[in-house]
Amino acid sequence: MEHNILIVGATGVVGRTVIKILNEKNLKNCNYFLFASKKSKGLKFNICGKKFVVDELTDKIFKTHYNFALFCTNEQISKTYIKDLVKDNTVVIDFSSLYRKKYPLIVPEINAKKVKNKKIICNPNCSTIASVMSLYKIHQKFGLKRIIFSTYQAVSGAGQRALEDMKTKNQKKLKKLNYVINNNLIPCIGEISKNLYSKEENKMIYETKKILDDNKIKITATCVRVPIKICHSISINFQTTKRASLQEIKDVLKCTNGVKVIDTPLKYPMPVIVEGKNDVYVGRIRKDYSNRNCFNIFVVSDNLRKGAAQNGVQILEDLLKENI
Amino acid sequence: MEHNILIVGATGVVGRTVIKILNEKNLKNCNYFLFASKKSKGLKFNICGKKFVVDELTDKIFKTHYNFALFCTNEQISKTYIKDLVKDNTVVIDFSSLYRKKYPLIVPEINAKKVKNKKIICNPNCSTIASVMSLYKIHQKFGLKRIIFSTYQAVSGAGQRALEDMKTKNQKKLKKLNYVINNNLIPCIGEISKNLYSKEENKMIYETKKILDDNKIKITATCVRVPIKICHSISINFQTTKRASLQEIKDVLKCTNGVKVIDTPLKYPMPVIVEGKNDVYVGRIRKDYSNRNCFNIFVVSDNLRKGAAQNGVQILEDLLKENI
Repeated sequence: MEHNILIVGATGVVGRTVIKILNEKNLKNCNYFLFASKKSKGLKFNICGKKFVVDELTDKIFKTHYNFALFCTNEQISKTYIKDLVKDNTVVIDFSSLYRKKYPLIVPEINAKKVKNKKIICNPNCSTIASVMSLYKIHQKFGLKRIIFSTYQAVSGAGQRALEDMKTKNQKKLKKLNYVINNNLIPCIGEISKNLYSKEENKMIYETKKILDDNKIKITATCVRVPIKICHSISINFQTTKRASLQEIKDVLKCTNGVKVIDTPLKYPMPVIVEGKNDVYVGRIRKDYSNRNCFNIFVVSDNLRKGAAQNGVQILEDLLKENI
Repeated sequence: MEHNILIVGATGVVGRTVIKILNEKNLKNCNYFLFASKKSKGLKFNICGKKFVVDELTDKIFKTHYNFALFCTNEQISKTYIKDLVKDNTVVIDFSSLYRKKYPLIVPEINAKKVKNKKIICNPNCSTIASVMSLYKIHQKFGLKRIIFSTYQAVSGAGQRALEDMKTKNQKKLKKLNYVINNNLIPCIGEISKNLYSKEENKMIYETKKILDDNKIKITATCVRVPIKICHSISINFQTTKRASLQEIKDVLKCTNGVKVIDTPLKYPMPVIVEGKNDVYVGRIRKDYSNRNCFNIFVVSDNLRKGAAQNGVQILEDLLKENI
């Protein structure tokens, strides 16, 4: 059986990484339909030996029936197209945050089972994926009582136009970011909500609880954009419910599926090492002597891969297997 | 009365900022003696209208009697020269970390009185100064129970040679940093100690307690080098002993001498705003809903100014006043 797979936003930073990963995975019997904005119309991509041409995103996407769709764009585009595709029995993997409160938020290593019989499946926020990947086994084994996140997020997390902002020094010519990012930090990602947290911070707090399926975990976050292109990093301080030794925490991390530990006095995870990798890297694992059962870790993840495209394609792979 | 003032390391990133600030302050009746490494010999600097020539740092510094000395270099140079200067009745302000455990660590806004009758006065670690500046009034008013630091530290904090590393992409040609910093983060500043904390992290923990004069505060830290030239930033999560409202915390910060608050939904402290400023900037002031009496703030400070030169020159000004 052939599967028709729609990719919306195929030429953006996430869409291009999705295509790269599809080529690495070599999924069988898939036909791809690539859509993007007008200016990308006509671009050609090879996926697993076949050539596909990008078309402009308009209502004509509804002319074909798709088994699966990946939406690698923003909330507005998800809002315009997803509901009608679902009516046509397409199973949609949405990278935007539009449906994250209503539909399952999936990180396959953690909660793959929840995709069953769902028509809309949400790919979580990029910093959240990296964080929960490093914490889910610890939560299963020792319980998480409280988490404090401070993030170091790459510019690609804000898309192609934000990457273009890295080339300009002129505040007025910025395309996506509110402020110049070169030689700067922007300690606010997304607008500030009534609770004084930024949209990104509220996502991390809400989504971590939802993915770990535990509303009792106490979480706070500070999200900061840093002048690097790829890889989100997170300084995480966490407290476990049950007593855990440093060695036990290290052992759990070493056995966490999808996680790699780099932790020697001279080696630690860094964006230059992690870029292009699908795993989430954890290091600087230390006991936090300031409180009982507390630990510090430093996590780095390729935000375009495990933070987005890799996670989404993993979901697609699971759906294809289920379908077979 | 004329004061002879020795500046060692006058041509480094901190030394040059000391000279810049001396020019801004226009201290009366001071004669400067500038020393640096061989390659800087002969460089000329204007300080308050007079011209001074840099000499090579050798034992000949002992030929003159100095009332005050500023050591803007590393521990090794402090070790070689300071003790003999002290015997000659010079009062030394040391920017290195050599004597920080033994002698007073001074941030004038907080503990200026402790300089009295001391021959060696230590300028604290740059991230620590920014942090304690934002916290000391809160500690006085509500008591600090626990602090969690995650830092975003500029390359200039590692000196001139580290700034030169920003220009190279070749790992083998690095002069000071262990890894390429462009498009990267280095989550380890200074060597890792037995307790698995980096030297910088241990400094922040130890020095914060010493400056706030309270060994009971529980503190942990994660220190990260980020690819920006100037300004250290710190994501701080803290818990107060006494109950405090968000408004009370904001009010205290607004009244903290040496601190500026920028905190609206569209404005927050950022390195591009803070570079070249003597104050420490605080924003993103929020209640941390994950625990009682907890708050998050984001702090940015020019690491070469209040983090080093400005703080050192403030100490010098206090000493000059005392001397008069």
